[in-house]
Amino acid sequence: MTFRTKLGAVAVILSTGFAGAAMAQDVGKAVEARQSLMQLYAHYLGTLGGMAKGDMDYDAAKAQAAADSLLAMMTADQSNMWPQGSDTEALGDKTAALPAIWTTYPAIADKGKAAAEAAAALASAAGTDLASLQAAMGGVGASCGACHKDFRQKR
Amino acid sequence: MTFRTKLGAVAVILSTGFAGAAMAQDVGKAVEARQSLMQLYAHYLGTLGGMAKGDMDYDAAKAQAAADSLLAMMTADQSNMWPQGSDTEALGDKTAALPAIWTTYPAIADKGKAAAEAAAALASAAGTDLASLQAAMGGVGASCGACHKDFRQKR
Repeated sequence: MTFRTKLGAVAVILSTGFAGAAMAQDVGKAVEARQSLMQLYAHYLGTLGGMAKGDMDYDAAKAQAAADSLLAMMTADQSNMWPQGSDTEALGDKTAALPAIWTTYPAIADKGKAAAEAAAALASAAGTDLASLQAAMGGVGASCGACHKDFRQKR
Repeated sequence: MTFRTKLGAVAVILSTGFAGAAMAQDVGKAVEARQSLMQLYAHYLGTLGGMAKGDMDYDAAKAQAAADSLLAMMTADQSNMWPQGSDTEALGDKTAALPAIWTTYPAIADKGKAAAEAAAALASAAGTDLASLQAAMGGVGASCGACHKDFRQKR
């Protein structure tokens, strides 16, 4: 093996190694980004659910703000957040995302669309009155549950 | 001290303890929620900055989606995310939020408004062409930096 050939081989190993490291970092960041979105779903649903259940006083302006923000989170761009290889079989307990997300695609996109539609209905109702908020919560809860049932690992 | 008095004292201690625990949990969740928003700012700015710097190819649709989502994150409701006692003096390294956020309020709200306006300008420009995207990135970067300079602890 000449020096030049050795150098070439090292360069290939290094560049492959760096590519692998870069990809792992990207995958980790993608997982963090989608988990941040989920955290924010939970944050706004905490306010809306608290009012719907009577744990906190109904406030039309606060309910509207939370529902608008929930809808914004559910319609935000997720195109870089679900790379191949970011499921729980690949990443362990860093994610609960089941491989079915990718193997049954676009089933998850349909469920995501249904969730966004339920969030839009909630945003139309949440600022009207408590009864309207309560009536619209069921659709959002059902759409969250439908997605988690098929695509999130049981804890 | 009678049994009833003792019981009363225990009840006060317990309820105070529970209230403290509930408040700590709420503060922790509030910090997580605002950090999730910041993560998502970084996520979308990563795409937009990557294109602006030439690290990835400019794509009008992707740039527009990222800029729209950044704007949605910057205009999302943060009313429950900054409770008193959620600064770095109270919580240590769980947050970099300086007490100045609360002691100089509403200075941070003005900076937040400026950041949202810069994000709106970016959303108007990002899908036009690369030069428009690049021109609008400076305003967003400056508004991020202005807020971090005054209100985020140096690392």
